[in-house]
Amino acid sequence: MGAIDGKGFINRINQIGAEIWFDGEKIDGKISEHPAFKGLLQTKAALYDMQQNHDLKNMMTFLSHKSGQPVGLSYMQPKTKEDLIKRRKMIEHWARYTGGIMGRSPDYLNTVLMSFASSVPFLKGKENCFPDHLQAFYEYAMENDLSFTHTFISPQVNRSQVYFERNKEPITAKVIATNEIGIVVKGARLLATQGGLTDEVLVFSVGKILLNEDEAFAFSIPSNTRGLKFICRDTFVGGDSSFNHPLSSRYDEMDSIVVFDNVLVPWNRVFYYNNQEVAEDFISRSSFHHFAKHQVVTRQIVKTEFLLGIAELIVETINIRGYQHIQEKMSEIIIGLETMKALLERSENNATIDEWGYMRPDIAPLKVAGTLFPKIYPRFTEIIQLIGASGMISLPTENAFHSTIADDLHQYLQGASKPAEERVKIFRLAWDLTMSAFGTRQTQYERYFFGDPIRLASDLYNSYPTADYARQVGRFLQLETEE
Amino acid sequence: MGAIDGKGFINRINQIGAEIWFDGEKIDGKISEHPAFKGLLQTKAALYDMQQNHDLKNMMTFLSHKSGQPVGLSYMQPKTKEDLIKRRKMIEHWARYTGGIMGRSPDYLNTVLMSFASSVPFLKGKENCFPDHLQAFYEYAMENDLSFTHTFISPQVNRSQVYFERNKEPITAKVIATNEIGIVVKGARLLATQGGLTDEVLVFSVGKILLNEDEAFAFSIPSNTRGLKFICRDTFVGGDSSFNHPLSSRYDEMDSIVVFDNVLVPWNRVFYYNNQEVAEDFISRSSFHHFAKHQVVTRQIVKTEFLLGIAELIVETINIRGYQHIQEKMSEIIIGLETMKALLERSENNATIDEWGYMRPDIAPLKVAGTLFPKIYPRFTEIIQLIGASGMISLPTENAFHSTIADDLHQYLQGASKPAEERVKIFRLAWDLTMSAFGTRQTQYERYFFGDPIRLASDLYNSYPTADYARQVGRFLQLETEE
Amino acid sequence: MGAIDGKGFINRINQIGAEIWFDGEKIDGKISEHPAFKGLLQTKAALYDMQQNHDLKNMMTFLSHKSGQPVGLSYMQPKTKEDLIKRRKMIEHWARYTGGIMGRSPDYLNTVLMSFASSVPFLKGKENCFPDHLQAFYEYAMENDLSFTHTFISPQVNRSQVYFERNKEPITAKVIATNEIGIVVKGARLLATQGGLTDEVLVFSVGKILLNEDEAFAFSIPSNTRGLKFICRDTFVGGDSSFNHPLSSRYDEMDSIVVFDNVLVPWNRVFYYNNQEVAEDFISRSSFHHFAKHQVVTRQIVKTEFLLGIAELIVETINIRGYQHIQEKMSEIIIGLETMKALLERSENNATIDEWGYMRPDIAPLKVAGTLFPKIYPRFTEIIQLIGASGMISLPTENAFHSTIADDLHQYLQGASKPAEERVKIFRLAWDLTMSAFGTRQTQYERYFFGDPIRLASDLYNSYPTADYARQVGRFLQLETEE
Amino acid sequence: MGAIDGKGFINRINQIGAEIWFDGEKIDGKISEHPAFKGLLQTKAALYDMQQNHDLKNMMTFLSHKSGQPVGLSYMQPKTKEDLIKRRKMIEHWARYTGGIMGRSPDYLNTVLMSFASSVPFLKGKENCFPDHLQAFYEYAMENDLSFTHTFISPQVNRSQVYFERNKEPITAKVIATNEIGIVVKGARLLATQGGLTDEVLVFSVGKILLNEDEAFAFSIPSNTRGLKFICRDTFVGGDSSFNHPLSSRYDEMDSIVVFDNVLVPWNRVFYYNNQEVAEDFISRSSFHHFAKHQVVTRQIVKTEFLLGIAELIVETINIRGYQHIQEKMSEIIIGLETMKALLERSENNATIDEWGYMRPDIAPLKVAGTLFPKIYPRFTEIIQLIGASGMISLPTENAFHSTIADDLHQYLQGASKPAEERVKIFRLAWDLTMSAFGTRQTQYERYFFGDPIRLASDLYNSYPTADYARQVGRFLQLETEE
Repeated sequence: MGAIDGKGFINRINQIGAEIWFDGEKIDGKISEHPAFKGLLQTKAALYDMQQNHDLKNMMTFLSHKSGQPVGLSYMQPKTKEDLIKRRKMIEHWARYTGGIMGRSPDYLNTVLMSFASSVPFLKGKENCFPDHLQAFYEYAMENDLSFTHTFISPQVNRSQVYFERNKEPITAKVIATNEIGIVVKGARLLATQGGLTDEVLVFSVGKILLNEDEAFAFSIPSNTRGLKFICRDTFVGGDSSFNHPLSSRYDEMDSIVVFDNVLVPWNRVFYYNNQEVAEDFISRSSFHHFAKHQVVTRQIVKTEFLLGIAELIVETINIRGYQHIQEKMSEIIIGLETMKALLERSENNATIDEWGYMRPDIAPLKVAGTLFPKIYPRFTEIIQLIGASGMISLPTENAFHSTIADDLHQYLQGASKPAEERVKIFRLAWDLTMSAFGTRQTQYERYFFGDPIRLASDLYNSYPTADYARQVGRFLQLETEE
Repeated sequence: MGAIDGKGFINRINQIGAEIWFDGEKIDGKISEHPAFKGLLQTKAALYDMQQNHDLKNMMTFLSHKSGQPVGLSYMQPKTKEDLIKRRKMIEHWARYTGGIMGRSPDYLNTVLMSFASSVPFLKGKENCFPDHLQAFYEYAMENDLSFTHTFISPQVNRSQVYFERNKEPITAKVIATNEIGIVVKGARLLATQGGLTDEVLVFSVGKILLNEDEAFAFSIPSNTRGLKFICRDTFVGGDSSFNHPLSSRYDEMDSIVVFDNVLVPWNRVFYYNNQEVAEDFISRSSFHHFAKHQVVTRQIVKTEFLLGIAELIVETINIRGYQHIQEKMSEIIIGLETMKALLERSENNATIDEWGYMRPDIAPLKVAGTLFPKIYPRFTEIIQLIGASGMISLPTENAFHSTIADDLHQYLQGASKPAEERVKIFRLAWDLTMSAFGTRQTQYERYFFGDPIRLASDLYNSYPTADYARQVGRFLQLETEE
Repeated sequence: MGAIDGKGFINRINQIGAEIWFDGEKIDGKISEHPAFKGLLQTKAALYDMQQNHDLKNMMTFLSHKSGQPVGLSYMQPKTKEDLIKRRKMIEHWARYTGGIMGRSPDYLNTVLMSFASSVPFLKGKENCFPDHLQAFYEYAMENDLSFTHTFISPQVNRSQVYFERNKEPITAKVIATNEIGIVVKGARLLATQGGLTDEVLVFSVGKILLNEDEAFAFSIPSNTRGLKFICRDTFVGGDSSFNHPLSSRYDEMDSIVVFDNVLVPWNRVFYYNNQEVAEDFISRSSFHHFAKHQVVTRQIVKTEFLLGIAELIVETINIRGYQHIQEKMSEIIIGLETMKALLERSENNATIDEWGYMRPDIAPLKVAGTLFPKIYPRFTEIIQLIGASGMISLPTENAFHSTIADDLHQYLQGASKPAEERVKIFRLAWDLTMSAFGTRQTQYERYFFGDPIRLASDLYNSYPTADYARQVGRFLQLETEE
Repeated sequence: MGAIDGKGFINRINQIGAEIWFDGEKIDGKISEHPAFKGLLQTKAALYDMQQNHDLKNMMTFLSHKSGQPVGLSYMQPKTKEDLIKRRKMIEHWARYTGGIMGRSPDYLNTVLMSFASSVPFLKGKENCFPDHLQAFYEYAMENDLSFTHTFISPQVNRSQVYFERNKEPITAKVIATNEIGIVVKGARLLATQGGLTDEVLVFSVGKILLNEDEAFAFSIPSNTRGLKFICRDTFVGGDSSFNHPLSSRYDEMDSIVVFDNVLVPWNRVFYYNNQEVAEDFISRSSFHHFAKHQVVTRQIVKTEFLLGIAELIVETINIRGYQHIQEKMSEIIIGLETMKALLERSENNATIDEWGYMRPDIAPLKVAGTLFPKIYPRFTEIIQLIGASGMISLPTENAFHSTIADDLHQYLQGASKPAEERVKIFRLAWDLTMSAFGTRQTQYERYFFGDPIRLASDLYNSYPTADYARQVGRFLQLETEE
């Protein structure tokens, strides 16, 4: 089968018919026609179409060693720096189509699954671990171009530091039984982005320290598995008009709570379970962080370029280039962009082959980028609001431009270098990215992409060779206790 | 007539029938029943009802010296510190009803008109100035409890520093002719909040340096004056449900572009025109800034209390009080609140009688508060997002809680100290204040309430007695050039 | 005896002859003539002289109820708001003499002792507590105008969160024995500012949570008590010239490590000991924080005025008032100054009588000021460096202005509005306050005046009535779990 | 002759005997023995010694094409990326010797002169330009290993935006006459770091917009040229002890005002004069910024490593690794370090051959680094102060550790993982870098290394291809006015 196209994707998702709850109702009929989902699904279809586009095929796919078919390039396991760069270019290309806004374009979780598969040997011989299942599933997913959602956050009942769940009925998803067919999971996970809109749900845990044994698992199941329910948040699609809502009309990825109502996961889909140590170590010792961050940082750079372009368009439109404070704000975005690019480049330059033969990008600059972006992205959205100022508020709709009042709008909303309609388009884009419900969800999403910022800072410090630098200073001071 | 109640207000606004354009259509029928406006008008009606409430009447009104009728207390010209405090308590009371969110509750522009009237003598004997018109109009407005919108921003065509409008047709509203009946105005103004939803439109300019002679005017006209059009932005009402949209369903004040299509302003409504010097000096030498800022800072304090309450509810709900970074964030809001309160208190303590006999609050602390709030308010909304974290995203709707999926929600969304439904209510409120289109418009609104922050900083510096402190240091250093 | 003058003070300190170690040598001879101490002691003498100055006497002293003598006003126990304001004016007056720079002018610890005495009833009937000793000592200190240093920081061996001292020999000062004459103390305390330069050393603990029983005490002993040693840091006096070193030549307060080498503290000087609960509660329930913070905030306001004056002198001297970024920086200082003033004013306005009959200023605004100043003061010193820019570096000395090269200096270092010599004086002052070893110690000192900033933030949050605000929002949302 | 060693350097500087004024006196005798200069000169000598060190020679020098002699590598004109990296390694090596603290190690101005020489063709055929003089002087300097100071700041009389000097006698150095022998210069320049301590003074202007014709020149003259005077600031050498003053005792570079008292610059040392356009264009179009910033950023990275090492030593010494806020602060330094490294790496990766055949590093990432470091360096010094906290203050001297009080110090100042003496050494280093007069001058120096930060931000924005990004967004929005 190999790499699919948009039509194939849409058909498959419609057929799956996962149990999705939206505003108190279970969705019936074609999901691809539902107002809250159609824009997003069309956008994803457009991404898949690139895989079949004659000019792009070489960039977007590679030939499977197994089937000889072209398969999605984000499934490729890199063995050289050139492979890494190929991966990055493919990721960039998809990211550019949405201005870096689609956080869960298919390459993200494809990359995660690829990183897991690249660390299969780690699981060998460990209790309750099934490296062969993982390897086989990776190949199956690649050959069939499966798409994924995943979910790694437990319900936020009580975030105090010493909380242990004591409820009778599980809240956090747990293995409550095993049988011949597989493991039985009950409970919930939060924030499955695009939940129900993908072929599969990949379930595993990251960085939770007080992980219970029965929460220590990794598996993947089809979205329409019996007992699996997706409960959506409110939609952030502002409407159909891409004039009024240039982003939300097309890119609202939807987030949902995933309920596991005694879901039976067959053994061949279980990668490991009931092994707390492996659950922690696999994530930290595999190439998960390396490849996932490489994908994310690439997309975030494209997004920063998009932001810089919007900011510059506003500056041009109302002719404010001459102001010192505008120059400072613009230079802040430039500093962010160059920094992110330099960090990504450094991670590729200093990539090394891991113990299993794959080329891992250097993790330190990627961690830095991953710690930085959650701080600078919200600031960039603030800068756009500060540059747009009062102009961000009084924005009429597409219909107004097609009404008898249009002449007034053309006269009174003209920009220094743009007609009124273009000016309103530009400001509506800026608004949709930074001030609509869609836009603020983007901000919150980038802020927490890799989890708690405080934990990220600790992890960066704890994994960095600061002792080397201390030793150098120790020698400078001729301390006897530092060699 | 005197102070009105809610019903009287609604009837009057429906009768006025201003020309309001919304999403390309002219509004027909009762404005009080239109989905984009009904919530706001009901909220305003509730405010007016307090004027007739037996228990509150004494706090909300005072007896007119002229008619002997109870009239709205925000119209009162303060002559003592007690008067100032009475005004503040009245303002607080109205502000509390909306958590300080309604920026243009009627007391704001009542206060502005009162401050103008309190400086009537300044206009005496000056060219093209009509102090008697202003005095008479103030009394008329007070006795009839008129409500106002106003508009002081010119279209943002070109914000470069040296821009002079050269269009043939005016863009910025201008006096293009005068005749026996009055002055003729053509052009537009931006950002009339509640435009078309008030009895009158008060038009004047603040702080524009390159003011042209024909833009130098102040007047008030009924909202239904011939040639006057209000072109609305998109609505930020999220829907009718106050569970889903606790704020936007009730408080979206709407902003509009005001078009003056050869509007004839009768002479008795013109306070001054074609006098650039007066246009600048009246604003800076009258008590406008004193009383307007006194009203605004009072409301902003109430809003800060509301924010602090929301933040604390989140902390309680998910039990995160023990985290050091939560404590720091909460203390930031507390510092802001105590600081704003202290500045307001200082402005009242140090109030002085002005040359025309009115008790002006001290302006320096109010300017400081007015410079501070645009910085701390956005930070407070960010703090709420940081405290709420991922919990701000996955919020189901009211309908979901009344559907067959409700049990799952009750189980998986429960908080440490609150049932799921209350938890969702709290987070939805936090979301509506900081992340909905309604909420981000609030943030932008507070950021620019008193105009360009850079100009505010310059003005604060230039009006502050820094030379006195320099002189003290000069004496410390025994400099000969400092006496 | 009553309030002393400068000469009396100098004589007394010289006679005391505490054991002070400076740069590896024990100080011999008159301390008032030692280059590291003479400037400071002369400054303190000038402060005491004000108590005998005919014009100031009424402001600086009050008549002791006991002796009928005029005694230092900082010893006065306030019973009315007028008393509070009297205290504040006295504090301001002393602070102005040094631009608010002398952090440990005598009024600071006089105030502390006064606050202790005002809470004497708290100690009544508690184990190992001697309220009568405290009351008698307060009266004795007041009548003799004793001056104090104090010390409340334990050695910083190991600041990890779970450290318990396990050394055989005590490091932190402890009660190691008691006998008929008193308690025996061994160990050290850090950072006694002006250690050895005062009549007495007041020893107690603040806010240490893991306080051991044997570290839980409060007492006062003469600086020349046997076994008491003061080990000084390096001097920060830059030299004698007040042109070159306008601040350090006069105000370097010196900090020292205090060693208790089996010091015997007589019973009549012990206020409490070996009572951990009292040690914590006395500090938190007495008026210590109220009065100490009232003194400190008053001084910090004077210091901010001094800083603002210096900044303004620089602006004038090199004529940079027109720059937007200068205006913003100056307005930042103004915002800080008005805020501090407003908070102090609010604390006085809302002062209340405590259970023992004394008028305590409201603590919340003082805590806010105490949390704010450690952040804004370092920023203000940075602003001065940013305003002075490269001009802060190339500053010639007084001798250069009296040499044959003087003409070149007059020509090339002239300012826009000042001759070269005055310009250099101004910049040297700015440098000495923000960039000399003296100045950076000032910055560090203000940063940590009330201890760990993180603890301050927690304490502010935990003592603030946030639940009230949560309840209001609960009512707004009609939550059933909030009444 | 070629690359010199330390002894050669010291002898040459002593022989030159420039006219240096220090504290009102003209320096007589060997400058290398003067307390204010000896430490610095010994440090420089140690750097030069590396050029003759057998193991380092290959890294520190290259063979002159002209003389065949080994000459200093910082004089090398790079033609390949490998050359660039060679240059960077040499720069790093010298920088490491002083922890990156010596801002004007000889490689800095060697690099500047090299960049000028690499752009010699630009001057060809232009009025008042002498490309041959520049080329010849570069070769002469290289072959003789000359060292330089330079000076590009005009006296700060009046920094207002529209200031024109109107004094009769020049203040800013100007060409006041020309004759057969050369040009005559009168006036002053500020901030010649190491002024009088180098062979030569290189004089040119950077980035001054209102440059007068007679201030538009570039030349180099020996430090002992008749009429040339260096007026020093006060010394920041704290003393001879490297225990007490580990940095200032060895690295105080001294800054001076340079007075040109009718200095005659011979024609063969004039590179251009009286040509305003060339003076501006040569700096912006030559490789000056590329190579100078490449040197500076390399050194700043070494300095950041030094800072990180100090911070880590403090953390270890008092065992505070476990604190969240410590981890955050440490991660801030790490983020800065990785970012600077990534930017430098990117500038090398993307280096390109310029029109005259030399390999220029990419300027954008270097500009970003040059805009970033002035903000992060002061923050890093603040972090060190915050980590060291009260421990930064009470630091006894070397003598104290050799006195009878030493036992007390050993007991009471011990650290968790270090004996007292080492702990004090570490803290003294931290203090000398961030809080001594030497250290704060370092901070101010890094803040302004490339001049006014606001101008840097404007320049970054104005040179960045933001229009490309605007165009991409224009296409996304299908704007007709953007192609």
